[in-house]
Amino acid sequence: MNKQFNLDDLQVGYDVPALPGMDESDIQTPCLVLDLDALERNIRKMGDYARAHGMRHRVHGKMHKSVDIAKLQERLGGAIGVCCQKVSEAEVFARGGIDDILVSNQVRDPAKIDRLAQLPNLGSGIIVCVDDVDNVAELSAAAQRHGTNLGAFVEIDCGAGRCGVTSTSAVVEIAKAVQKAPGLSFRGIQAYQGAMQHMDSYSDRKAKLDVAIAMVRDAVDGLKAEGIDCELVSGGGTGSYYFESNSGVYNELQCGSYAFMDADYGRILDKDGKRIDQGEWENAFFILTQVMSHAKADKAICDAGLKAQSVDSGLPVIHGRDDVKYVKCSDEHGVIEDPDGVLKVGEKLRLVPGHCDPTANVHDWYVGVRNGKVETLWPVSARGKAY
Amino acid sequence: MNKQFNLDDLQVGYDVPALPGMDESDIQTPCLVLDLDALERNIRKMGDYARAHGMRHRVHGKMHKSVDIAKLQERLGGAIGVCCQKVSEAEVFARGGIDDILVSNQVRDPAKIDRLAQLPNLGSGIIVCVDDVDNVAELSAAAQRHGTNLGAFVEIDCGAGRCGVTSTSAVVEIAKAVQKAPGLSFRGIQAYQGAMQHMDSYSDRKAKLDVAIAMVRDAVDGLKAEGIDCELVSGGGTGSYYFESNSGVYNELQCGSYAFMDADYGRILDKDGKRIDQGEWENAFFILTQVMSHAKADKAICDAGLKAQSVDSGLPVIHGRDDVKYVKCSDEHGVIEDPDGVLKVGEKLRLVPGHCDPTANVHDWYVGVRNGKVETLWPVSARGKAY
Repeated sequence: MNKQFNLDDLQVGYDVPALPGMDESDIQTPCLVLDLDALERNIRKMGDYARAHGMRHRVHGKMHKSVDIAKLQERLGGAIGVCCQKVSEAEVFARGGIDDILVSNQVRDPAKIDRLAQLPNLGSGIIVCVDDVDNVAELSAAAQRHGTNLGAFVEIDCGAGRCGVTSTSAVVEIAKAVQKAPGLSFRGIQAYQGAMQHMDSYSDRKAKLDVAIAMVRDAVDGLKAEGIDCELVSGGGTGSYYFESNSGVYNELQCGSYAFMDADYGRILDKDGKRIDQGEWENAFFILTQVMSHAKADKAICDAGLKAQSVDSGLPVIHGRDDVKYVKCSDEHGVIEDPDGVLKVGEKLRLVPGHCDPTANVHDWYVGVRNGKVETLWPVSARGKAY
Repeated sequence: MNKQFNLDDLQVGYDVPALPGMDESDIQTPCLVLDLDALERNIRKMGDYARAHGMRHRVHGKMHKSVDIAKLQERLGGAIGVCCQKVSEAEVFARGGIDDILVSNQVRDPAKIDRLAQLPNLGSGIIVCVDDVDNVAELSAAAQRHGTNLGAFVEIDCGAGRCGVTSTSAVVEIAKAVQKAPGLSFRGIQAYQGAMQHMDSYSDRKAKLDVAIAMVRDAVDGLKAEGIDCELVSGGGTGSYYFESNSGVYNELQCGSYAFMDADYGRILDKDGKRIDQGEWENAFFILTQVMSHAKADKAICDAGLKAQSVDSGLPVIHGRDDVKYVKCSDEHGVIEDPDGVLKVGEKLRLVPGHCDPTANVHDWYVGVRNGKVETLWPVSARGKAY
């Protein structure tokens, strides 16, 4: 224990897992730790890339759900604002002072549309995605009711198989409806290919993006033929941003995971066949965990289980260790194979989670660490904001 | 919309997904919904079973993380208290007025041991699990420092492959150390077989429990031979409680999921080959979700993805529907196969999540519903309390 902290006074662990100034070894586990140097390098690198390629970068706030990190991305990486997936997330970012917010999703519930239409009153520009003409009338009525203006992107399903229309004629029909609707402004196209981001092979990813780019170009041309200009064409993720940036048709990126990295994204390969977590991006996001039992000689039990992470994209990887392996996860236990019995009870390990977005969403705090010391605590501002 | 609610006044969705008195159809999604009638029937049924079999029932609070539900289990089901997995959960339950709390896990971090040893000052009896003699001295020193007394269970790994010792000699050695340690009281044995609870076959589960019961009986006999009496022998879950109850050696159950049910537990079979969610227990726990896009004729997109649930034990099942199927899950989207195009945008559906414990842990509120109306909102009191 670092002797300068008196636990009785500080009540560490009652509300927060750490305090600024504390040694990393005193952080209470399991909790999220950010390597601030690595995070800042990732943010600057993507910002430099976007600037060099003439792309706007609207960072994906659904990944970190943090006002502090979004502002760091604006300050260090030149981000122009955020996208997020839910009205409740947009409320948090708008209240936090983010000026330009895209809800990169459909909003159909009457109560949510009503909340969305009030958001511009907080001073932020708000854009929302539309894939159905009926939704245009709903959004327009709410914006008029509140005396606000909502931007609209027509969403194209360019391969993800989720929301979005699949033909240029549908894009044109919806864009025309938006242009005629009081309280709405047509701002452009949402075209995020979410299904290819995690394919290991660069050429497989490129083939999927070639299809997406062709669809988007056809839609932009179709709109132009009707006299409708596309101010923004938005999309692109950590596994594809170079394709959109060099497409000649996209002008806005929506990358999220590049800032944190995770085990599943880290495995995909760049154009030279190298893992993207071994050069392109650094692991900046960890679950700090502690060994709490070693009653069996070849097996250590740690305190990070299903309540400390999401395993939808695979188990976490123990950072910087080849001699021990995280092999099983239950609610509050992680089983670590330790064939040589090298781990000690009380020892702390950094885990790289399988999937950063839903892992961040179960925690209340990011503990920012630099040179072995806790430098800052940032709330996961929009944690649990799913509605 | 139910006209008696003015959304501008109530700010529904800003902090809570619903308000008491509201129609179920007005709840903002995705959120957790409890069928209060089903929940109460499950709780009474398990309480009646435990009473009839002379078993204490220490309900597993890690499942719901709710002080309100723990108290309902005490009131309607005769529960004697709770078990939970983390010191931070125990802090919430102790502050919430639960008298008898077991931390069914190892506590090894100096700061956490310090917090644990202070908990009896809140008025609750506290028991903790031990599987290492070194831990006995750590706990004893902390209890003496704070002038409190901690109960201790020696944990046996009876098949789960996580924490716990595997020999009677180790149980006896630790129990003797506890008996000699100032500030600690030996209270009995923790022996939860977590690895067999989800096996479909009743006879497979029974075979695993037979082994566990034999280990526990040997340990109890070994302690008795040394003049050490086991006041409590604690274990048993929703897939096994009848085995422990009829073992003649266990006297305390630790069931959790029976109260809520989930899709993965629901698939296991009772001794007559019948799924346990079709008679033994009722589904009381749902994710309410809404269709937000149906731009493709055979595919509906709903708003409950990885941020609204854990899919570690499989995808959710759409309750009461055979005509549509939840087939894919990404961060904020659920893809539903709707071959006949029967779903409408805006329609709300109840999902039975794959795994109730980590699903409850991503939400802030339980919305309690009866006869189509919201009756109550309960906070997920210990949500995120992982340290």
